[in-house]
Amino acid sequence: MSFAAGDGLSGMSKVKVDISVSVDGYVAGPNQSVEHPLGEGGMALHDWAFALRAWREPHGIEGGLVNASTGVVEETTANVGAEIMGRGKFGGGPGSWGDGAWTGWWGDDPPFHMPVFVVTHHERAPLTLSDTTFTFVTTGIEDALARAREAAEGKDVLVGGGADVVNQFLGAGLVDELSLHVAPVLLGGGARLFDGVGPGVVLEQVRTVDAPGVTHLTYRTVR
Amino acid sequence: MSFAAGDGLSGMSKVKVDISVSVDGYVAGPNQSVEHPLGEGGMALHDWAFALRAWREPHGIEGGLVNASTGVVEETTANVGAEIMGRGKFGGGPGSWGDGAWTGWWGDDPPFHMPVFVVTHHERAPLTLSDTTFTFVTTGIEDALARAREAAEGKDVLVGGGADVVNQFLGAGLVDELSLHVAPVLLGGGARLFDGVGPGVVLEQVRTVDAPGVTHLTYRTVR
Repeated sequence: MSFAAGDGLSGMSKVKVDISVSVDGYVAGPNQSVEHPLGEGGMALHDWAFALRAWREPHGIEGGLVNASTGVVEETTANVGAEIMGRGKFGGGPGSWGDGAWTGWWGDDPPFHMPVFVVTHHERAPLTLSDTTFTFVTTGIEDALARAREAAEGKDVLVGGGADVVNQFLGAGLVDELSLHVAPVLLGGGARLFDGVGPGVVLEQVRTVDAPGVTHLTYRTVR
Repeated sequence: MSFAAGDGLSGMSKVKVDISVSVDGYVAGPNQSVEHPLGEGGMALHDWAFALRAWREPHGIEGGLVNASTGVVEETTANVGAEIMGRGKFGGGPGSWGDGAWTGWWGDDPPFHMPVFVVTHHERAPLTLSDTTFTFVTTGIEDALARAREAAEGKDVLVGGGADVVNQFLGAGLVDELSLHVAPVLLGGGARLFDGVGPGVVLEQVRTVDAPGVTHLTYRTVR
């Protein structure tokens, strides 16, 4: 593990949350399903990203724009060594895993290219697809974080969603940096960021980036 | 009434919402009361404004800062001819009006300096304090808007909160411009902006201003 100079966390790598959210605070729309993994209207949260070369390239799609969001996306993954996600982000809700043949939303070459730890109640053997290994952790967020930190080898750990796992990390005071990509969309319902997090978390505004179709807000948590 | 060139609303003045909100989407904290008009923790939503000369001057307080928020605050009121607010913003919840002697939160010289229309279920004669007259409208938001437009004499109408009256205006599709002042605060509960507004409102991102202790986000509604 590397020790960054001036790091108030005794040399621990950072835990970062990075998530797209509607103006009314939802990270997915209502009625999520296999047909609508992000709920009704939820794909619109990511329109700003889908248009970018910086997003398309790791997803194996050609073309795309370079704009004010490019640097934000590049920074997001620059020093990240592992990602933690909920079961929904890996591959949907109850029933969709079936007999274990289901390998998630992300195809044969998932865009993560790093160790991924899936917080879930359902045990499952690790799953390797191309250069991404999904490890399923059934013992809660603190265990997932310990394993992700170890796998990240001194780099940062990204908590990538959905709302439930992000809210658990925020509520437990485990997040160092919070990046919100606010899409100009009202969803009116769905998976609500900050639900149950409460007033105990103190934020410090770090940076705002105004980009086409999105505003990027970055906060640090104050301990 | 003046008719602005190129105004898609047939020359009608704009209806603007302008409100401070926490990162988790509340415009007041939990447990609002006479002692805590903005709920527990809710005053922190306005710290960015309290520090400004542009806020202090109309409130009759000396001193204050000039920073990136100054222009935003000045623009907010520049072309506004009338304000609409809920009963809570005027003077608190049930019981606080008593026998009619209660004149609201705002003292002998309220900071509005324009006609104010208070949406309420409780009839009351108009109340003039210095150069602000509060008119109490018991027949709903559309009537309040019609009367505010008339009083504004071609200028814009500001919907100044609280959450309930703002959400009614948004849900009814009556808002042209939405300015959110996002304070780096989590309140964990309280009066939630966008509650019940639903997905029917389409937004267009207009501008973002990064200022000390606040981010100003401006959206237009698309009809």
